[in-house]
Formats: sequence, C-alpha cells, structure tokens
Amino acid sequence: MSQSNKDVRPEARIAKGFRDIEAQELSGLDDMLSTIREVYERYGFVALETPALEYTDALGKFLPDQDRPNAGVFSFQDDDEQWMSLRYDLTAPLARYVAQNYQTLPKPFRRYAFGNVYRNEKPGPGRFRQFMQFDADTIGSDSMAADAEMCMLAADTLEALGIKRGDYVIKLCNRKLLDGILEGAAIDASDLANRVVVFRAIDKLDRLGLDGVEALLGKGRRDESGDFTEGAGLHPVVISKFIGFLRAALHENAERTRIQASGGRYEWRSLLDALRGSFGHHKLADEALTELESLGVLLDAAGYFDGRTAIDLSVVRGLEYYTGPVFEAELTFPVKDGDGNTVRFGSVGGGGRYDDLVARFTGQKVPATGFAIGVSRLQAALSLVNGRKDTPPGPVVVLVLDKDNVADYQKMTQELRNAGISAEMYLGSSGMKAQMKYADKRNSPCVIIQGSDERAKGEVTIKDLVEGAKAAAAIKDNKEWKEARPAQLSVPQAQLVDEVRKIIARHRG
Amino acid sequence: MSQSNKDVRPEARIAKGFRDIEAQELSGLDDMLSTIREVYERYGFVALETPALEYTDALGKFLPDQDRPNAGVFSFQDDDEQWMSLRYDLTAPLARYVAQNYQTLPKPFRRYAFGNVYRNEKPGPGRFRQFMQFDADTIGSDSMAADAEMCMLAADTLEALGIKRGDYVIKLCNRKLLDGILEGAAIDASDLANRVVVFRAIDKLDRLGLDGVEALLGKGRRDESGDFTEGAGLHPVVISKFIGFLRAALHENAERTRIQASGGRYEWRSLLDALRGSFGHHKLADEALTELESLGVLLDAAGYFDGRTAIDLSVVRGLEYYTGPVFEAELTFPVKDGDGNTVRFGSVGGGGRYDDLVARFTGQKVPATGFAIGVSRLQAALSLVNGRKDTPPGPVVVLVLDKDNVADYQKMTQELRNAGISAEMYLGSSGMKAQMKYADKRNSPCVIIQGSDERAKGEVTIKDLVEGAKAAAAIKDNKEWKEARPAQLSVPQAQLVDEVRKIIARHRG
Repeated sequence: MSQSNKDVRPEARIAKGFRDIEAQELSGLDDMLSTIREVYERYGFVALETPALEYTDALGKFLPDQDRPNAGVFSFQDDDEQWMSLRYDLTAPLARYVAQNYQTLPKPFRRYAFGNVYRNEKPGPGRFRQFMQFDADTIGSDSMAADAEMCMLAADTLEALGIKRGDYVIKLCNRKLLDGILEGAAIDASDLANRVVVFRAIDKLDRLGLDGVEALLGKGRRDESGDFTEGAGLHPVVISKFIGFLRAALHENAERTRIQASGGRYEWRSLLDALRGSFGHHKLADEALTELESLGVLLDAAGYFDGRTAIDLSVVRGLEYYTGPVFEAELTFPVKDGDGNTVRFGSVGGGGRYDDLVARFTGQKVPATGFAIGVSRLQAALSLVNGRKDTPPGPVVVLVLDKDNVADYQKMTQELRNAGISAEMYLGSSGMKAQMKYADKRNSPCVIIQGSDERAKGEVTIKDLVEGAKAAAAIKDNKEWKEARPAQLSVPQAQLVDEVRKIIARHRG
Repeated sequence: MSQSNKDVRPEARIAKGFRDIEAQELSGLDDMLSTIREVYERYGFVALETPALEYTDALGKFLPDQDRPNAGVFSFQDDDEQWMSLRYDLTAPLARYVAQNYQTLPKPFRRYAFGNVYRNEKPGPGRFRQFMQFDADTIGSDSMAADAEMCMLAADTLEALGIKRGDYVIKLCNRKLLDGILEGAAIDASDLANRVVVFRAIDKLDRLGLDGVEALLGKGRRDESGDFTEGAGLHPVVISKFIGFLRAALHENAERTRIQASGGRYEWRSLLDALRGSFGHHKLADEALTELESLGVLLDAAGYFDGRTAIDLSVVRGLEYYTGPVFEAELTFPVKDGDGNTVRFGSVGGGGRYDDLVARFTGQKVPATGFAIGVSRLQAALSLVNGRKDTPPGPVVVLVLDKDNVADYQKMTQELRNAGISAEMYLGSSGMKAQMKYADKRNSPCVIIQGSDERAKGEVTIKDLVEGAKAAAAIKDNKEWKEARPAQLSVPQAQLVDEVRKIIARHRG
C-alpha cells in the first residue's frame, strides 16, 4: 500500500452521524444490557439475533421519513441486483423471521433482541445514524394482556436500572383514536402518506409544543436551522380539532400528575367516559376506548396504574406500522436543554401493537405487540441519575528497564496474568519516566520495577500508584520525595503475585 | 399498508449468505464472549467499539478479493455523495480511530473489540456474509514482545474456552520470507496485485493441498463447482521455488509434531539456521529470520514453545496489510469434511503485524500488531468439543382457563416475576391442551393452573412438567394416569412462589 499514499492520503475521520464508544462507556453499557436482559428473561422472552442486512422488500418501509423517497434507510444493490438495506429497527426483521419460520415457532412467540439499527437521517446533537435498541415482542396474541405486559415490562426495566418511581411514566394511548379523528375529517386512514405526516407532527408535541404541531398539520414549519418541513396540509377546521384534542390531553395529564402527586386516586375511567361522549358512536374510537379500558383494568389490577403507567392521549409514536395501543417510556426528571431551559428528560423508548406486519408476507393476520428501549439515550439518562462512574482500574504495568531482559519481564507479566491479575509489560520504546506516565494514563494500580540491582538480589520493586499519588500530594519538595520513596517496596521475586494482590485488595477496600 | 399488499406480497426470506441466531446458540455465544473478554482484559487490553459503517476511503481495501474491483466490501453512496462501506474487519476501523485520536491515546494503545463484520463474497457452507470477530491489537509498538504476546493470548484464550492442549497450535511465520522469494524471482513485493494473488494462493494450502496451490500460482484453477479462479501466472521456475519451500514447510511441521508428541524437545533454532543458509544474505529474509528468532526466544522463555505455539513456514494469511510476523490459530483435532474425509478442524483465527495501516492516514509510521478470533467458527468448534448443551429451562407458564380472570392470572405471573422467577401468562387464545403443549415447547419447569374450583378454595395447582414427563414414561394407560395425576399438587395460593421455587431447585439439583 506504500506506493500510492505518498500522493493522496485519506483523512482519518469517522463518518458523519456515527460515533466511537470507548471503554468506560462500554463497561456501563454492558452492565445496562445485562440488567435489561435479566428483566426481559424474567418475563419469559427468549433471545433472537437477526442480521443487520436484509432484502429491502422484506424490511418494508415504515419509517417516519418514508414520505421522502429513499430517505431514512441505508440501501444499495447487491451483486445479483437485489436491493438490500440496513435494518432501521428490530421489528421489521422480526416480522420477516416469524413469517419465514411460522410453522415451527411456539405460539405466541415471545422474543427479545438487542442490536444496532441504522437510520439514514440528518444527524443532530445526541441523534446518531447508528444506535442500539433493546426490544421485546409478543407475536401471535391479540390479548390486551400482552400490551399491558409491555407497559409493566418497561416500568420494571427502568426501575431495575435505578430510575426511581416518580421519575418516569409509561404512557399509553391508542392509534385508533387519532384514526377516528382523521376519519371524522373524511381523511381515509389508509391514505398512508397523509396519515403518517399527521402522526409524525403530533409525535413532536413534546419537542415543538402545540404551535409547532399546528404548523406541521397545516402548511409546514421552518426550524431554527432554516430547514423547512412540509406540513400535512389539513383544513384549518380539522387542525383545530386535533389541537383541541391535544390541549385536552395535556390538561388531563396535568390533572393526573397533580392528583397522584398529592396521593390521591386518579379516576382514569372518567377520562374514557368523557372521550366516549365526545366521539359518539364511532367504530374506530369505540375500539380504541374498549382496548384502553381493558389495558386500564389489567394495569390497575396489577397495581401499575399508580403513576408508573398512565393513559396519555398525546402519545402517538412516529412509526407507521402501529395499529392499536401505543406506548412511550418517558423520564420526567428535569434537565437543561441546549438553550439552558429546564425540560423533562423525555422519551427513552416506546412501542405498540402492529397487527399487520407479518400479514404483509403471509396474508394471514398475526397480531403482535412490542416495546423497544433506545439504549444510548437511556444510558445518557442513567449517567445523569447515577453520576459518572469511577474509571475502572487498569492493568499492572511491568516496566522494561533493560531491553536485553525482555523475556524475564514478559515472564513476570505472565505470572501475574496466570494468577488472574490484569497485567502487561510496557511495549513501547521510551524510558522510565514515560513508562511511569503511561502507567498513570492506564490507571494502573501499581508498576513492577526490576533494574540490574534488584535482579542481582532476586528482588522486584512494586510501586503503588494510588498511594503514591496521595503521598505526592502531601510531600513538599523533591528531595524529601527522593528520600522517602513513599508507597514503594522491594520484595523477593517469588512474592510478586502475593504482594500485588495485597495492593489491589487494599485499593478495593 | 393494507392497500397495496393484496397484489404483491414480498417473500419472507433472509438475505442470501446471512443467518438468524436463535436463543440456545446465543446463550453459548454469550458465555464464550465473556470468557474471551476476561482473558483479553487480563492481558491489559481495553474495549473499543467503532461503528459498522465508515467512509470507504477511510477503510481502504485490503481484502483478499481486492483484485476484483468493488468485490468483497458492501458499499454505497451516501446522500451527500460520499462512498460508505460496511466494515469488513475490525482492524481497518481501528487504524482510522488511532489516526484520528493519536494525540490523546496512551502509547502503546492496546484495545480489544468484538462485533460483526461484513463481506460481499460468495457464501458457502459455514461461510457467511456477516460474521463476528473478536480482536486484540497493540498499536505503537515495534517490539517482537507485542507479537509474542498475541500468540500467548491466542493460546490462553483457546484453553480458557475449553480447547485442550494438543488440540490446537498457534502457528507463526513472517511475511518477509515469502517477500524474499518473490524478490528473488524479480517480482517487486510492492506490486500489490501480484503479491496478493500469491499470498492468497499459498493461504489455501490447507484446503487445496500443494497441487491446488501450484495451479493458483500458475494459470489458475477450476473448482468442483466449475468456478475458475485466475492464477498468479508465475514462471514455472518461480512456482517450483514456492512449492519446494512449502513442501519443506510441511515436512518440518510433521517432524516437529512427531518430536513433540514423543515428549522430545524440538530444536526450532536449527530450522532458522537452515533457512539462513538457503536464503543467503537477503535483506528481507534476514529481517524475517531475525524477527522469528526474537519471537522464538520470547515464546521459549515464557514456556509457550512447547507445541502450543510453533513456527510454521506455510502460514501467510490472506489479508493484504500484513508486513511482518503473521499468526494463525489452528484446531488440530479431526473432523469429517463434507465428503466424509477426516481432516483437521482448521483455522479459527489469525493475525499479524501491520506497520503501515495508520501511516496510510498520517504519513507517520505507527507499528502495530493484532490477533482476531473468528467467533462463529470457534463456537462451531466448541460445540463439537463440548457437545450440545441442554436447552435452558423456560419460564413458568400460568395457564388461562377463564378469560374473565385474566387480571388474576396476570397478578400471579407478576408475583412470580417479582420473586425473580422467569414466568409468563399464556397469551394465546387456545384451550387447555394447546396451552400445555405450548408450555412443553417452551421447556417450562412447571405450569400453574387455577380453574373455578381451585379459585373457590383459594388454591392453585402446580404441575411439574419434568417429573410429569418422567411419570408419563412409566405409566401404561390413560386410566391409571388420570387416577394418579403424577407430579401435580394443589397448594394455597399464598404458597405459590415457595412451591415453584422448590420445584425449580429440585430440577437443578
């Protein structure tokens, strides 16, 4: 490769909208994934991993951005001319898997999955084009108990991760309510393009407020960056119907929060009664309210309707494929936004019922419901709640003072490793001072030193870097330091492992 | 989505060359990854995760297939016209990361990473287009101790996973030896296209034998499927030089194996002396032999040159970017191949030194070496060694006998979950018999039954499915069965959790 890069060298840059994840964050991520998995498995879900690439037609296109052709999904043509796409969620591949393996699966089929998904969208602060989701889905059940379970699962998961009760709410609603309003406005709910633009607009209520949603339901909206988003172009009368509905929803949420905060019992049935009155005898709205009632009864009986889960009429979710109940996990504790305003942390996951996704392949209706956690966003929330963790201790570093004795240093290193201690020999070419600096940067608990004097005596010197740093802070001048040589001891080489163990145990204690 | 798919339904099919991974395999994978991680961390490597997508020019193209333009890598053009590619290994993204973050990294930088990589190649049996690698790399060290460490890491990892000593060998060689032969034949080692075809040909020695390699070094080779692979087109004299070298290599391997199997001490230095004689004073060969000697001294001193690691002159590795030592982890135990012949299991990982990969960006030489495990292939090997694991126990299933009491069943389920027991309520719409079948299919330890009689008495019935299956095997007729009702007990509902715990504990014991 040496002949060409004299002329043109590529720039070392990560692709726009992507990020590298380093050791400390990965360690937190790992703990988090284990906890989520534990809860999901306790709920009886089993693991499944599908590939990152699928045939484009098998994934379908149910992204919020589907109104812009080719947007949203990373796609390309295979060698044999077939279009392939990177998965944009874990639900579409699950539908493909279920349709492909329907005969042999237990029914209902309950699976969990986690993995990265890819969105070919405009990146923004905290908004990446690769991010991890952690999903649970129940395929083959039309029971509202399956949906209720998703809400309970979401609540239990957040609590298992350390989010306190009162700092989150699992909000639920039903797509058919909004479909009812659309239908009432003589907008065909199966007119996908329009329906999705409306749902997307309403899904942005948290971020844009009622005015923003109003603009998006109408002609459109220009954001601060100058980008213009085309609106749904609804008639002002229809828009005011939606806005009225959302205003009432927000009012009801405030009421519920007030009542529950004062220890009162919120009467969710009155809300459903009021809606029943306002919709009259409308088929879709009737279905929505019946489903919401069933969900309410189950969650109430299980004790989860105490503020952990709640009906919130403003919840809609941006994805197109939902057909009934929809859920959203919101963290309610305050954070500062980019402009310094105090806002709620916001959504860290969501889901809903998607009864038509498997039928897309088989023609046979297979009801399904699921919930997905936005892993990175939830991890960001957890680091706010729990504070940043200490850097985990690094390896013991065996310094190389004498290059001719590398084999001996290597052997000491191997002895430590064989005893289960993370250790390494310094592999660079710099001197003692740089090696000490390296050990500091690696957050080493101690370094092992053996010069010719020590070797002659069959000894090694162990320098405790944690104690050493404390001592250094207390000692005033260089001379005193040299005389005291704090946190440093020489021991017979045979005792190396034992002494290092003692130091590590001391740091832990 | 309902309006269009009446006409054209997509076929539910996974993309060619990809695969779904189900629960049992995932559970084994998880254990395996934890073990590998533990060993890598004990060696002082820290985790890093880079994205699956990178700019194409940042990844470069160092795949074996690079002589066929556009082959090997999944690539497509981004919205802003930039070419992006799915990573084909974890090393190229690491080079990008190091070049991008060079100033702030500890030097040497030691990182491990695992994740899926993607190859746009012809799939075959056991050969997928998405597969997982687990890498360790040391960047910024030109010391052969870094390479020696890779070999020790590979050996320790295989043993930690349960591969017995004698069932594997970490083979090492040096690219510069073959470069020496190429140069001796007046073929410029920097003539990449040719050099890579030669290396690829030799890399196939295990699979194709000397005749196959000879064909690929010459005009080319047609495989059983009829596909023709273009050869390197070397002069017959040069070919016979390579073949002679490889024949000697195979002979030497057999000698080493024989000596070590009989408990003798293999004199690896004699091999290097013989090579020194045959190459004369050739600069590249001299470098190769000096490096091999350093590696040998270190591995010998650490006690790893006892057959766990060994010089094998036939090792070359197919990737283009290696510049010095190369390693290959081979499992040596016998398996049957597709034609029923007994063969060695073969390679499960490899690596080597790649001193120019970071320089591609910065112009500044940053020496580096690494080792990668082919995770799926190693997992396949482990399942041969350890046998297939038992299916892990599934959740306790709470049957739904009476739909009006779903909330009660849900509550029992939740009680079990709160006690840390994996449990679920049956969410389908079928009757008792299908529910029992479902529980069997889920490998449930027991089911919970509460009909109206039990409810009236405040009791639940627990049916132990493991004991039940045993009893069923022993009982002859249906009448006897009905009278005995084995492995089934009724308890007050308050004792549900305790009784289920007892049953699960009994199965474990």
